[in-house]
Amino acid sequence: MAGQLVECVPNFSEGRDLAIVDAIAQAMTGVAEVALLDRHSDRDHNRSVITVAGPPAAVGEAAFRGVERAVALIDLTRHQGTHPRIGAADVVPFVPLEETTLEDCVRLAGEVGQRIWSELRVPVYLYEAAARRSDRTNLENVRRGQFEALTREMGTVAGRNPDIGDPVCHPTAGATAVGARRFLIAYNIELSTPDRSIADKIARTIRASSGGFPCVKAMGMLLGSRNLAQVSINLTDFERTPLHVVFEAVKREAARHGVEVVASEIVGLIPGKALEMAAGYFLQFRNLRPESVLERRIAAAKAAAAALECAE
Amino acid sequence: MAGQLVECVPNFSEGRDLAIVDAIAQAMTGVAEVALLDRHSDRDHNRSVITVAGPPAAVGEAAFRGVERAVALIDLTRHQGTHPRIGAADVVPFVPLEETTLEDCVRLAGEVGQRIWSELRVPVYLYEAAARRSDRTNLENVRRGQFEALTREMGTVAGRNPDIGDPVCHPTAGATAVGARRFLIAYNIELSTPDRSIADKIARTIRASSGGFPCVKAMGMLLGSRNLAQVSINLTDFERTPLHVVFEAVKREAARHGVEVVASEIVGLIPGKALEMAAGYFLQFRNLRPESVLERRIAAAKAAAAALECAE
Repeated sequence: MAGQLVECVPNFSEGRDLAIVDAIAQAMTGVAEVALLDRHSDRDHNRSVITVAGPPAAVGEAAFRGVERAVALIDLTRHQGTHPRIGAADVVPFVPLEETTLEDCVRLAGEVGQRIWSELRVPVYLYEAAARRSDRTNLENVRRGQFEALTREMGTVAGRNPDIGDPVCHPTAGATAVGARRFLIAYNIELSTPDRSIADKIARTIRASSGGFPCVKAMGMLLGSRNLAQVSINLTDFERTPLHVVFEAVKREAARHGVEVVASEIVGLIPGKALEMAAGYFLQFRNLRPESVLERRIAAAKAAAAALECAE
Repeated sequence: MAGQLVECVPNFSEGRDLAIVDAIAQAMTGVAEVALLDRHSDRDHNRSVITVAGPPAAVGEAAFRGVERAVALIDLTRHQGTHPRIGAADVVPFVPLEETTLEDCVRLAGEVGQRIWSELRVPVYLYEAAARRSDRTNLENVRRGQFEALTREMGTVAGRNPDIGDPVCHPTAGATAVGARRFLIAYNIELSTPDRSIADKIARTIRASSGGFPCVKAMGMLLGSRNLAQVSINLTDFERTPLHVVFEAVKREAARHGVEVVASEIVGLIPGKALEMAAGYFLQFRNLRPESVLERRIAAAKAAAAALECAE
């Protein structure tokens, strides 16, 4: 785990022809030092998400190669699916993991975006932390009307021009949104009630959009299979709003409504640091530092040894 | 972090002449792939603890080289200190970390013990999980009377002969206890009272020796500097008796005595897994598996990629 590490989670507009998704994934993981963390294709969305991690330059190269393959293999004029999209390579977000900052990822997004335009002639929108206009922080604004509307509006409607490249969609690959964001933790908290309105009320209390925690998106849902209401949460910056703070708030609100938290559930991956922070909070550790954690100490010792070797 | 990893925490009978400790540490870390995690010398104890980690064979080699240096540089006939000891290299415990078992460490202890006798002529006692006689599971039995008594009793008093080697102490280096044990978590829980008797009572409730949790050693202490009582805990197998279970028990017992837990404190290092287990407990995660943790997924992906490269 020593050294700089970023994640990239590109979404491609193909979720049915798995030979195409294979080809894209192979192009990405063909880059040395890039590890495939996860891969998920959805038939209804007709969309695939490929998660890779590695050193920044290697991940930038992998992202570019994935986009290159997608541009060659996916024809968006014939694409149908329930998920909104503007391009064959629809979104390409970079996420800082170890020893990298959000700013490093903003820079990487700019560099990869420039290559996508220069070498593939696909115009690029920069979003979230990489946005160069405030209205593009929110990806929904970039994607409004999708590929079909964008093809018509680019170059004619005010404010729809790309950040990088000429204002003309690629004929078959559309445009690509390249971004930088922090690691997003997706998790659900189940309540001891089938009453979805309670989950809705709790979601409104904790989410940023209705005055709650700054880094929380949340909504109430009904889990049909178990007939339980749940609060479905996206935590967009767990270092600013810790996981355990949100959990404790949900628990407190649930009690106010006379129900209990039954369980919680992670969707996808969770950084070890979020768990360490939670353990430190609940166990009331006075002195839990990253270097108190055995595995981090080992990684640091290995990195120091490697640096020493290079210096000799 | 991918691949097999063991820790070794040898204790050497020198804590004042740091040039000697330097020489021992350098001999150990001169082995490729061995990382120095921690190093601590105590003048009163006249003893040093060097913590290293790496692949099993490399750590075994490092342990042997450290013992070899200690045997060459430390003269136990002139050693004075408050900590009990039987040898220049006093104890050499191996601890399983990643992808290794306690049994792997028992085997490693046997191999290194054999080399210590064959090449250095220092007789070896095997202790804890590596013990070949039940009375040597407990290190105190091996170390009774220390170097001075052992020198007289070896070969003459029943039950004092070493497990490996002739029953004669090395003239200047004594004997060495080589063992295998699980990772030990040392931590203290501070109470909102200066009354040490409450900490004593709680310690008696939770520790194995008076009927508490099987993997807990504990005693009450008074923290002079802050005038607070604390329960000082050694957790010898956190996978069997989780950290959070002990913490919750102390909290409950404290409340019964009308006091509160003020804070807890780690001494040394704590494995990430112990923190993940605690976070999973308190956050009520239904599905927290090792592979849900981002860093483990990355390590697994890297290991898989490396294996694939070797196979090609």
